[in-house]
Amino acid sequence: MKLLAVGTVAFDAIETPFGKTDKILGGAATYIGLAASVMKTDVGLVSVIGGDFPQEYLDMMTTKGINIDGVEMIKDGKTFFWSGKYHNDLNSRDTLVTELNVLENFDPKIPASVADAEVLLLGNLHPAVQLAVLERMSSRPKLVILDTMNFWMDHTWDLLMEVIAKTDVITINDEEARQLSGEYSLVKAAQKIHTMGPEYVIIKKGEHGALLFNDGKIFAIPALPLEEVFDPTGAGDTFAGGFASHIAKSENISFENMKAAIIVGSAMASFTVEEFGTQRLEKVTQDELKERINQFKDLTTFEVEL
Amino acid sequence: MKLLAVGTVAFDAIETPFGKTDKILGGAATYIGLAASVMKTDVGLVSVIGGDFPQEYLDMMTTKGINIDGVEMIKDGKTFFWSGKYHNDLNSRDTLVTELNVLENFDPKIPASVADAEVLLLGNLHPAVQLAVLERMSSRPKLVILDTMNFWMDHTWDLLMEVIAKTDVITINDEEARQLSGEYSLVKAAQKIHTMGPEYVIIKKGEHGALLFNDGKIFAIPALPLEEVFDPTGAGDTFAGGFASHIAKSENISFENMKAAIIVGSAMASFTVEEFGTQRLEKVTQDELKERINQFKDLTTFEVEL
Repeated sequence: MKLLAVGTVAFDAIETPFGKTDKILGGAATYIGLAASVMKTDVGLVSVIGGDFPQEYLDMMTTKGINIDGVEMIKDGKTFFWSGKYHNDLNSRDTLVTELNVLENFDPKIPASVADAEVLLLGNLHPAVQLAVLERMSSRPKLVILDTMNFWMDHTWDLLMEVIAKTDVITINDEEARQLSGEYSLVKAAQKIHTMGPEYVIIKKGEHGALLFNDGKIFAIPALPLEEVFDPTGAGDTFAGGFASHIAKSENISFENMKAAIIVGSAMASFTVEEFGTQRLEKVTQDELKERINQFKDLTTFEVEL
Repeated sequence: MKLLAVGTVAFDAIETPFGKTDKILGGAATYIGLAASVMKTDVGLVSVIGGDFPQEYLDMMTTKGINIDGVEMIKDGKTFFWSGKYHNDLNSRDTLVTELNVLENFDPKIPASVADAEVLLLGNLHPAVQLAVLERMSSRPKLVILDTMNFWMDHTWDLLMEVIAKTDVITINDEEARQLSGEYSLVKAAQKIHTMGPEYVIIKKGEHGALLFNDGKIFAIPALPLEEVFDPTGAGDTFAGGFASHIAKSENISFENMKAAIIVGSAMASFTVEEFGTQRLEKVTQDELKERINQFKDLTTFEVEL
């Protein structure tokens, strides 16, 4: 199946305890597209960039088979820019700069080549943009995956609820699940979120792994314990991209296959954090991915005889 | 194999968002003994109580097959008492009262009936007491498991390092692993702790599960997602007790079997949190335990085909 992802294609400037970067390639849609290219999934992006966006980045994506027909360039605009500094534990960060630039008036255009995608990943953006994308698809995709965050809960609750109602799979972190549902227990939170629309709820817990809820069934996976996390930027987007890519590539929308997709997403994200920005993800091979998926198997397999 | 556990047999008074108790049965050794009795493991306790300790609690333990020859009663002393109040999220708590009482001058006696235990679980106590127990065994146990906490790192570092050097398995939480090792990455922390003595490092992460490290190998297990946690008191002790009991009962000290033991400990602990204190654990049957272990299997099993 074809995957369409809407999200940012952007510049990031990142500072971690291990070093800092100038403006480098970033953005949720970028990570999603790169994850899909590792999976050799038919993927298109919908996004907006400014005239300052380097042609070489676009060429890199095209070379990797990412359809960028839907990446609109506003020639006299500037590309979205985010800058952040991570604390020593890498689990929290301060945002230093957020320049929305061309994102401020983003009116997503869906080219015919991607409007028929069966899997739609609505990356973390203003819910009004997410709604517009949903409405502009040529038909309702077979699977709509929503990535969102607390910011939209705080500022655009009603619009967000509209998007959530049209969503099959939602991916949020544990604190956001609690905020969205008003429930502390993640089991109860997922139950409540099911009633808002999504049949599948994925709760991302960073270094503690992820949970998948569906109709009373639960799947839980720890994160791969890493010796060193170099830069967490994009890990969540890579996870979502790996997840959606596996569903699209395997053409299988079932709880069992979503478990597999979560493993693919987790394995993919474990590469992203190894270097700054997209550097590591750009180089990942299918063999490396398979090896890391096997590591997940080793990590979690057990037999108990009482 | 025979299991000997040293730890507190005590009174707890607990307040959670769901209610509060008067003085009820508590103490690490109590939870460990009860977990072992569910597993039908040959278990003995070494502890100290005051003359105020109810005979009915002792009878209950004896009825469950727990050897209490090593539980010394100081007739004119008072039993260790802890009181705490949990915050709304149940992830943190305030200690309201700590009365050491007979624990203050605890000089552990090891009766002949348990001095030859092959598995020794040194519950969370002053490292000097843990060292004394080790020295008073009739021979070095085949497996020494140490449970400790940040308090002893803060106040009795040198003695703690002595105990750790004589330990095969250490169980601590993630923050304590970081404090003990000075490493933020848990992979690096475990590597450093290996060099202090323990061949096996178990890192308990509460609602996020547990990790087992041994010689470059890692096993990770999420916690069973629960709809409601009623009272977390004793969960860590129950985990340690379930772990040690499975090793002793199965007479198998290997990485593969420790993985199974971690599942048993996690499943056992998931019962403890369902009611106040030891109430739920006292009623657990082997069939219930088996069912919960199967839930862990369902929770974590996946197949990925790329």
